[in-house]
This record gives sequence, C-alpha cells and structure tokens, in this order.
Amino acid sequence: MNELLDESLDRITDGICASYRSDARTQRVGHAFLPSRERIVELLERIRQLLFPGFFGPKAMTDQSIRYHVGNLLVQLGEDLAEQVYNCLCYAAEEAPSRNESRLGGGEKDQDASCRARAARIAKDFLDAVPELREALALDAQAAYDGDPAAKSIDEVIYCYPGFHAVAVYRVAHQLHCLGVPLMPRIMTEHAHSVTGTDIHPGAQIGKSFFIDHATGVVIGETTRIGDNVKVYQGVTLGAMSFPKDERGRVIKGLQRHPTIEDNVTIYANATILGGQTVIGRGVTVGGNSFVTQSITADSTVVSETPQLRVRSKRKRSS
Amino acid sequence: MNELLDESLDRITDGICASYRSDARTQRVGHAFLPSRERIVELLERIRQLLFPGFFGPKAMTDQSIRYHVGNLLVQLGEDLAEQVYNCLCYAAEEAPSRNESRLGGGEKDQDASCRARAARIAKDFLDAVPELREALALDAQAAYDGDPAAKSIDEVIYCYPGFHAVAVYRVAHQLHCLGVPLMPRIMTEHAHSVTGTDIHPGAQIGKSFFIDHATGVVIGETTRIGDNVKVYQGVTLGAMSFPKDERGRVIKGLQRHPTIEDNVTIYANATILGGQTVIGRGVTVGGNSFVTQSITADSTVVSETPQLRVRSKRKRSS
Amino acid sequence: MNELLDESLDRITDGICASYRSDARTQRVGHAFLPSRERIVELLERIRQLLFPGFFGPKAMTDQSIRYHVGNLLVQLGEDLAEQVYNCLCYAAEEAPSRNESRLGGGEKDQDASCRARAARIAKDFLDAVPELREALALDAQAAYDGDPAAKSIDEVIYCYPGFHAVAVYRVAHQLHCLGVPLMPRIMTEHAHSVTGTDIHPGAQIGKSFFIDHATGVVIGETTRIGDNVKVYQGVTLGAMSFPKDERGRVIKGLQRHPTIEDNVTIYANATILGGQTVIGRGVTVGGNSFVTQSITADSTVVSETPQLRVRSKRKRSS
Repeated sequence: MNELLDESLDRITDGICASYRSDARTQRVGHAFLPSRERIVELLERIRQLLFPGFFGPKAMTDQSIRYHVGNLLVQLGEDLAEQVYNCLCYAAEEAPSRNESRLGGGEKDQDASCRARAARIAKDFLDAVPELREALALDAQAAYDGDPAAKSIDEVIYCYPGFHAVAVYRVAHQLHCLGVPLMPRIMTEHAHSVTGTDIHPGAQIGKSFFIDHATGVVIGETTRIGDNVKVYQGVTLGAMSFPKDERGRVIKGLQRHPTIEDNVTIYANATILGGQTVIGRGVTVGGNSFVTQSITADSTVVSETPQLRVRSKRKRSS
Repeated sequence: MNELLDESLDRITDGICASYRSDARTQRVGHAFLPSRERIVELLERIRQLLFPGFFGPKAMTDQSIRYHVGNLLVQLGEDLAEQVYNCLCYAAEEAPSRNESRLGGGEKDQDASCRARAARIAKDFLDAVPELREALALDAQAAYDGDPAAKSIDEVIYCYPGFHAVAVYRVAHQLHCLGVPLMPRIMTEHAHSVTGTDIHPGAQIGKSFFIDHATGVVIGETTRIGDNVKVYQGVTLGAMSFPKDERGRVIKGLQRHPTIEDNVTIYANATILGGQTVIGRGVTVGGNSFVTQSITADSTVVSETPQLRVRSKRKRSS
Repeated sequence: MNELLDESLDRITDGICASYRSDARTQRVGHAFLPSRERIVELLERIRQLLFPGFFGPKAMTDQSIRYHVGNLLVQLGEDLAEQVYNCLCYAAEEAPSRNESRLGGGEKDQDASCRARAARIAKDFLDAVPELREALALDAQAAYDGDPAAKSIDEVIYCYPGFHAVAVYRVAHQLHCLGVPLMPRIMTEHAHSVTGTDIHPGAQIGKSFFIDHATGVVIGETTRIGDNVKVYQGVTLGAMSFPKDERGRVIKGLQRHPTIEDNVTIYANATILGGQTVIGRGVTVGGNSFVTQSITADSTVVSETPQLRVRSKRKRSS
C-alpha cells in the first residue's frame, strides 16, 4: 500500500543488512541471544508463588492440598529454571573469553553436557534454598511493618510495597548470583528496578531485616555490604566515588567501589553515601539529603549541615 | 528430566511445606488473600474509560450512542467493583482485630451479608461521584497545560503525562479511601507508583488544580494536606521527620506526620519538606533542592542557601 | 445483582453524560482520540527488533535468512508506522489552530489525502534512517560498557540497562520528532519514562556516545542541548529555571529554557543544572548533588561546596 516504501524496499533492506554486517556489537544474527527476559520474568513470578503461597498464584489451597501444589510447582519450575540457567551458562561459555573471537571451538559437545549438568545442579540448589529465602523475607516484611506507621498489616507489605518487592527479587537474584549463574540475576533485578524504581545490583551483600520505604530512586551498587536491621528511604544512593582506569582509559572492573553499612543503620531520604573505603558504623543515623564520603563511627547521628534557609517576602513593601 | 531434582523432590517439598507451617506471616494457605491486584488494576482501567471517554477504551462513540455505552459500562463496573470491594471488606473483617487469632468466629453469615450490602452501597456511591471526579480532573489537566511550556495540548496531558496519571489514580483511590474501602486504594496508588514513579498515599488530602511535573521520585505521605493550585516537580518529598515509638520500640501509627501545603504553593525539583508541624503558607515558592523542616509564612520565597560552587581547572599549569 | 445501583442507574448515567457535555476538555465523544498508545508501544517493540536483531524478536536467524526477515518486517512496519503517523497528523490537523473551534471545515478530503501522502513519506524516511540510528546506538552501548565497571558485556547493556533503553527510545522518538510527527514521539518517550524512570523529551538534542547510569529520576528537558561523550548518573535534572509568562499569567512556550552541555562532560548523581543560559563547557566534571545555575568554563571540575558533616554521638555520657 505504501508505494513510496515499495519502491525503496530493496535498497532499505540492503542498507539495514549491511549495517548488521558492519557492526557485530548490536546484533546476534547467527548466534541468537538465548537467555530470554520474558521467560526469566515469568520464572520470577512462579518463584514468588512458591515464596508467598496464597498471596500470589492459586488462591484455593488448603493445608491438605498444599503439598501437591508445591510438588507440582517444583517439578515444572525445576525444569524451566534449569533450562534458562543452561541458556545463560551456554551464553557465557560461548562469549568467554571475548565475544568477538571464534565461537566454534573443539569440545562443543563436552561443554554442552557440562552446562546441562551444572544447570540441573543449580536449579536443585536454588529450590533447596527456598525455606531459607522465606525466613529472610519474613524478617524483611516484619521490618517494613514495624518501621512504617502507614503500614496497616504485614499482608499489605507483601502485597503492595514496592520496596519489599525489590528486596524479594534481590534475594532471589543474589542466591542465583552466588550459585554462579551469569546474566539472569541482573535481568531479574533490572526487572524489579523497572517496576519499583529501586536498583539493587545482585552482587550486593545485604543482611537480615532490611527495609526500603517508598523505593523510588534507590541505588545500591555491586560491591555494597549491608548489615542487619538497616532501613533506607527513597532516593538513597550507596554508590561509587571514582573509578581507577586502565591504560586505555577504560574503567577497571572488580574492585570494591561501594560503601559498607553496618547493623542497625537508618539512612533517610535522598542521602548519598559514596566510596569503597566508607564505613557507616553500627547504629548510625544518616540524615536526609546528607552527602557522605567518609567513614562514620558507630552510634552517632550524621547530617550534612543544613544549608541556611533564605526566606524572602514576595510582597512589595517599604522597608 | 532433571534427575537431581527428582531424587530430592520429596525432601524439598517437605522442607517448603514445613516452612509454610512455621511462619504464618508469609503465606495464606487455607485463607486465600482475596483482594486481587490484577482485577483491581483492570477496574482502574475501566474507571479511566468512564472518566475520559474517547481517550481510553472504545473510540467510535457519538453523542447519540454514548448513553448506551455509559449505561452498559456502569452495569458491569458496578458489579465488578462491588465484588472487589466485598473481598476487601471480608479480608479486613477477617483480619480484625489481629491476624493471628482465630478466624472462624460466630456470626460469619451475618458478617458476610453485611459486607455484601456495604460493598454494593460503596460501589454505587463511588459511581455517583464520577461527575465530581471529572470536574476535579479537568482542573488538574488544565493546571498541567497552563503550567508546563512543553505541553502542546490538554489532550497530551491526559494521554501522556505520568504526573497527571498519578493524580487521577490518587483521586479515584482517595474517593474509595473516604468511602471506607480497605487495601484497594493502596493497591491502586502503588500501581500508579510503579507506572509513574510518583508515590501518593491514598489518605493524603489534595485540593483543586494540582500538577506534578516529570513525576519520578515524588513522595506524598499519608497525612499530608495540600491546598488548591499547588505545583510540584520531580523528586519532591512531603514526608515525615521522625516517629514516636511505643514501649515495644515500634512506631506509633495514626498521628499527623506530614506537612501542610496551603494554596498557590510551587515546590521545585527535589525539594524535601518534612514534619507534621510544618506549614507552607499560601503563595510560597520553595526553591529546588531545598530542605525545609520549619513553617514558612505566606507569600514568601524560600530556598536553601545554595552551597558555594567550587570550580577548579583540570589543566595542569603553573600558578 | 446490585439492586442499589439498578435503582440509580438512569440517574447516574444521565449525570455522567451531562458531565461529558459540560466539559469538552476531558472527553473525545464524537471525535475519537485516534493516536493509539498501545499500537505505538507495539511499533516501538518492532523497531527494536529491527535495530537489535537476535536480541529482541525472533532468535533463529542466519546470515542467509536475515534478508527475508528484514524485508518482511519492513513491509509490515512501514504500513503500520504510516498508519499511526497518519492518525497523529490527522489529529494535529483537526486540532489546529484551536481544539474548541469547529472541527468540520471545507477541504476535509484534500487534507486527508495530504496527511496520507505525508505519513507514507515519513514512514519511508524513518526506515531509511535505521542504519544511522544503529550506528548511534552502537556508540551509546559501547560508552555504557566502557563507563560502568559493573557492566559484564555490551550484550548486558543492550539487554538489561534501563539507561540504554531510555536513550534508544529517545533516538527513535527524536528522529520522528525531526520528521515532524506530532504526539507520537512524546508517547514513546513517556513509555520509556514509565519503564526506566528516565524522562527525556523527544525535542532534546543529544550527541554521540551518550550514557545514563542507573537511570531512575533523570529529567532532560525539551530544549536541552548535549554534545558527544557525555555521561549522566541517576537523579540528574537538566531543567528550566523559571518561565516568562504572558499577560494571562500563562507560561510562554517555545523559548530555550534548558542548559547546554558540551562534549566530554560527566554529571554525577542527583546534580541539578538549570537554565537556558547555562553552558557547561567541554570536559567539565559536575560533582554529585551539585546545584548549578551558571555557566562553567571548559576543563574544570565543579562541585557544590559540600555542606559540613555534623556527627553527634548518640551515647549518653558525661562530657
């Protein structure tokens, strides 16, 4: 119908195909990018049903029927999780050491079998850890209820609170990260980031009873370490200060770049804490909007000197 | 297929079921959590079609056909809204006074009938309020168009602006909150929070012609009071300062904890205003990034003393 | 079933229909709002498949089959894009000069044909620009990988990074904006805003190798100009300072209101840069949380004087 396009179709098609050939970075023709975000997000949904039965997923479960429900969910989840983990392992094996080198080496079959076996083990180990995850999440939910005067019940926290959702996805993703799964954990936390506005890197280490209120704009970097009973409000950044660069001017990866937050710390809205050397001691309270790049000793309150408020009347008057 | 999992299936299933029995906080086995987020979000979508016909939902409506469309929508919406309100009322009745006590008391049937009747009345009262909601939202849309130089038309505001969407959902949720519906209003505003980055608690009180520009990161707490013609930019927090705690160290719920914003106030990006005693008077302008924890008299401009900028050349030179 | 509602149905329906008649701003009865957000978002998804084949959309493509895949995608996309562009053009033509004037003038047929022809040309021109868009996006992806120590590969950037997604949608929307398509570009960037927390106006001008890390809370206004190799972190606002108003007290539209950022500038988290006269020179580094409303000369570092930290011990001791 679009005659203009019809006339140019061959030319445009050739131009786009040439563009694919000329830059391998932005295409995966011939080497499909197998880890599937849709499938991984869908796995996350079913893991949530396993973690919080009756809140998410089927409603009409009894103490009698629950065992069949769980067994059945585990069988399916075990298979699908192993499949996606396998895809992620294959992807990483194919990419290593560098994406632009030859992808077809010897021993491909061996590698495939080894990825399959590893994926099966990881899926089992993950499901084995579900009771432990549930314990951690019960403490997180309790911490949210105890810490927020607007929370009407723990149910409301589990069902509605974006901060709780971000922490739940982080705990799942961190478990998979610890089990050595590439890419999938990041896909999970970025999905939660999109839904909640909270960006927690799956590599961060976070203790028990963690609560994020209001959620939007929180950033917790890859090498952050957080103790128990820590409370964080919207807009808080636990970030890096500066990055040492290599001789090509590119940032060196793998160093500790983010702060350490010890037990019982509260960090109010929009505070920024930066640097791998920065340690916020036990029991510290960090005031809203503070900008902290130094360590703070335990049991203290730290606030940025509040800038003087200048109040000026808008009324035009003498004097 | 996953043999490793097959071998462990019974053990893992038992472990997870034991975990459900050992912590009632994070499961609803035998007492399904009836309010359904999916259904409530879907209700919100149909309410939007009722509020803004032709923008959302069916397109081909004429002045003649519209009456049939509305009547039909009302019949379905009335029934589905009453059903979800009923679920929320039952849920709250079952939970009160405390979730962990016995859930099966006498008078269950009476209670059920009373929840049904109340839900029907609430659904009717809500639909009765639609013209009033539309009036309020027309003023909000006009305020957005008048206040934003980038706005090309009121249509663009209604169709694209996340701040307007957050306010529209808040007004719907606040109405249901005032009608005494538990949980549902919070599910609605948290859905809007996820979509827009703006977190308005359904309990907040907001006057006419309210505009939020850019939306992301705005937090408006439960006990905030906002007058007419107020304009707020991204990242603004209207929050609590500190919470009195009870003898068990838990935060006391129900006090006024958030500020009062009077008519004709403008609050620029990333300003933070905290505290239940804080009153921002009529006509005040609050500068970007300001941190305000005291009351401000009417008709003034308040800014945090801008910290001195330190500019340092990167060039290595003598001197 | 809801008897209460049944009794009031006529009255409520009449009330709502009267509300539609009394305020034309919030309804489109008789003049459906044709540009469809769902369709436009779905177009965006297919454009993404064209830009990053193998990452998004069908996986099993080879160097041999790709040409058929692209040709086929182009035919469909060309038609659907032209259709939506046509709707946007019709909408704008109908609205101009003012929505509340008569919508039925002479020459309606001529206008329709002219919109059709223009839409076909725009769709062709957009698809012609795909290789150029791909070049720009490859540079953006590389900039993200080079600039973020947590990035494991360029694939991870393309597949997971919300900042990259926001920039990709912006580049598509900006292209359509430059081709003169009304409304659609804003629908696209507001969709990306919802998903990523980054609000880039399609009218902004952004150079090569642009990277936004963590994404949430970034606002880049309509008249912003950004050079090459610029890096921006979460919560950064490139905004307007104040708006000259017309005699009716409404903001005047169309002036340069947002800053100019030259090449090789880095802007750390939560910095705010305001004003149409503000120029941040080549190679400048802007510190986190800085508040800048003046121009900064090239090759310097600018930080807001960090407010003194006040640290107070919580322990009750003598002295």
